[in-house]
Amino acid sequence: MLDMPRFIENKRDGLEHSPEELREFVRAFQAGEIPDYQTSAWLMAVLFRGLSRKELTAFTLALATSGSVVTFPGSLACVDKHSTGGVGDKTSLVLVPLVASCGVPVAKLSGRGLGFTGGTVDKLESIEGFRTHLTREEFVRQVETVGCAISGHSEELAPAERRFYELRDVTGTVPSIPLIASSILSKKIAGGSRSFVFDVKTGSGAFMRTLDDSRALARQLVDLSLALGHRSLALISGMDQPLGRWVGNAAEVREAIDVLKNAGPADTRDLCIRLGGAMVFLAGKAKSLPEGEDLCRKALAAGNALERFRMLLEAQGGLTLCIDEPDRALPLAPVKTLIRSGKKGMLASFETERIGNALRHLGGGRRKKEDSIDPQVAIEVLVKIGEEVSPGDPVFAVYRRNGPEDPAALALLEEAYAVSESASVQPIVREVIEPLGTG
Amino acid sequence: MLDMPRFIENKRDGLEHSPEELREFVRAFQAGEIPDYQTSAWLMAVLFRGLSRKELTAFTLALATSGSVVTFPGSLACVDKHSTGGVGDKTSLVLVPLVASCGVPVAKLSGRGLGFTGGTVDKLESIEGFRTHLTREEFVRQVETVGCAISGHSEELAPAERRFYELRDVTGTVPSIPLIASSILSKKIAGGSRSFVFDVKTGSGAFMRTLDDSRALARQLVDLSLALGHRSLALISGMDQPLGRWVGNAAEVREAIDVLKNAGPADTRDLCIRLGGAMVFLAGKAKSLPEGEDLCRKALAAGNALERFRMLLEAQGGLTLCIDEPDRALPLAPVKTLIRSGKKGMLASFETERIGNALRHLGGGRRKKEDSIDPQVAIEVLVKIGEEVSPGDPVFAVYRRNGPEDPAALALLEEAYAVSESASVQPIVREVIEPLGTG
Repeated sequence: MLDMPRFIENKRDGLEHSPEELREFVRAFQAGEIPDYQTSAWLMAVLFRGLSRKELTAFTLALATSGSVVTFPGSLACVDKHSTGGVGDKTSLVLVPLVASCGVPVAKLSGRGLGFTGGTVDKLESIEGFRTHLTREEFVRQVETVGCAISGHSEELAPAERRFYELRDVTGTVPSIPLIASSILSKKIAGGSRSFVFDVKTGSGAFMRTLDDSRALARQLVDLSLALGHRSLALISGMDQPLGRWVGNAAEVREAIDVLKNAGPADTRDLCIRLGGAMVFLAGKAKSLPEGEDLCRKALAAGNALERFRMLLEAQGGLTLCIDEPDRALPLAPVKTLIRSGKKGMLASFETERIGNALRHLGGGRRKKEDSIDPQVAIEVLVKIGEEVSPGDPVFAVYRRNGPEDPAALALLEEAYAVSESASVQPIVREVIEPLGTG
Repeated sequence: MLDMPRFIENKRDGLEHSPEELREFVRAFQAGEIPDYQTSAWLMAVLFRGLSRKELTAFTLALATSGSVVTFPGSLACVDKHSTGGVGDKTSLVLVPLVASCGVPVAKLSGRGLGFTGGTVDKLESIEGFRTHLTREEFVRQVETVGCAISGHSEELAPAERRFYELRDVTGTVPSIPLIASSILSKKIAGGSRSFVFDVKTGSGAFMRTLDDSRALARQLVDLSLALGHRSLALISGMDQPLGRWVGNAAEVREAIDVLKNAGPADTRDLCIRLGGAMVFLAGKAKSLPEGEDLCRKALAAGNALERFRMLLEAQGGLTLCIDEPDRALPLAPVKTLIRSGKKGMLASFETERIGNALRHLGGGRRKKEDSIDPQVAIEVLVKIGEEVSPGDPVFAVYRRNGPEDPAALALLEEAYAVSESASVQPIVREVIEPLGTG
């Protein structure tokens, strides 16, 4: 039996837990043998003291194996991708078929959106008929037959992680980099993929606001993956403005389809190619990142990625009309309101989180897990950082339902951008973080 | 309604709570509206971040007024004394009648022992008939008529403090100086006294092992008392060896009576005079600490202190035979075992906590609140720091019940002292800490 007060005191005093203690802790926590008030005190001590590499490895593995683990046949070295979450991030919808069309099996586990961030499962649900939750057997079989699958997280995978997260969420213990890393990686490992690409967002629409914090999380993720025997890379990408042009569930699926049709906004397209290239490279289908990116570019140009998306839809029951007639299959909400600039100058910065919150006010996001979502409401970003505006130029277009205006959403958008004399424009991918000690 | 996750996050991030927030927090905690897992996360954040003077004042006052508050008639400016706990500390038994016999009303609230420390209530229970728990009305009336009273803490006083303490005890959040100070002071304030003397122990038998920690707690206690409108002084006294010659409940009452008879070991006697002098001074019966100490010395020499002790016993139902025939009224356990030195030299140091734990093994202390206590077991300290020993000289005498030897108690005592070529002897009172900003 774990002496729980002593265990907490050791962390409080900066001592190191043994792997055995951490395994026993996770087991006992999951079994309901530890009162939550002790676990939350430990979590707060971890927030201040951190976890050593050895502790983090043992803790993450214990979380990862706390439920079922997906197993693929030995020949299927799947790759998975994780984004730390942002506003307008529709890359998964592009990446899964794109990378699969390059011959790399992709087994993508996705979540729902919460707060200002969107979630891939919510986006997919705007496609009529799409089955977002596959059984473990269906998931494995589809990766074998179609080369890719996307599924919402099953309750069976890393259940201890979910219970920890629920407790962290109400005890001020979410923003701990080791806890975030263990939370992400335990679910990825339970998902059965061989290698991982992490898209660590940075900026005003990301959980990590500063480049330093994003770097620290990226470093933690790739090093921890290595310690657990998984190849990985992390890309730090800009979330100082929404990704692409559209924010909103159906609208983001439409933008993803545009990219799969070898069009779409430059930043979304570029980020998909960079992330896709990394996935192809990690899977061993390319000798370098640029070679992987080149394969992705070709797959988009040749229509292979779009073709694979059609197969994915067919396999998961989604109507392919969304590809051929997006206006009919993925309509936007009917009432359009423009938010116009009052100043002349250059769009210098966004308060991106406010744009995510504005979408939530329109009904396109959720405050609590139980909230339902309206897929058709959307915000169109008409001016991006570094572009010029004059007084009266529209900056955002809001697509909402009939009925009264939502003053909160409009007020948030009015305060969500700044116009200035000049602007600093940065590339969408800021840095690539490799694990230390790999060749 | 308090937004509890935000409240925790603010403390975690080093922001200051408002007095209103802290009052509402204590109210809601006491009302059972806040889950313990949130309170314990906040407590751990306080352990790392501390509490500002303003926060500590509001928090302590909220705890102090969470139940009944004892009120004395305006003419009775009572003084109370608090020790942070140690081994062989029987000063309260002396101080209450001693200070009362100098014309200062003493309203002493006491606790039980736990772990390696003893408690005044347990000691008093070795006196046949002594009623250790008075009602609030009895307590006030006895101070009016006898000039002093000692009572175990009532459940009605500062009940929120007790609930916080129970949670701290199992979540690694006890050793936070602001939390310790608020815990001590909230109970003292609820006890209704006008001024307080704090005996902050330091050394191997104290909760604060280092002089720095003891100083920090003493400073916190006197400054917080001032902020709450109470006069106080703190004495930092040595707990690097047991106080006096005896450890054990009945044995300590006997030693206290010896001091009241103007005899007893020098360190116990000195500490009582220093603490008593401070109490007399704070109550305004002496113009300086030395003058207060002098009044105490005279009260001991004249027999006034002993006489007042007799009145106290009579008022609370205790048999006065313990004064006149201590061997009959307060017998020690019959089987005596000596622990002898194997070395020649000077007694250089004690692991005092082990002596307290040895008494607990003999049945004279408790591990859990529910444990019962054997008042007759005792440990006699035959050699003190700075005294010489030769091989074969007894260092401790153990007084235990008939039956098998307790090897754990003896082993603890064997490891509880060190003999060396020289020793550093320090005065029993190390420092006197006055509140900042008093004239």
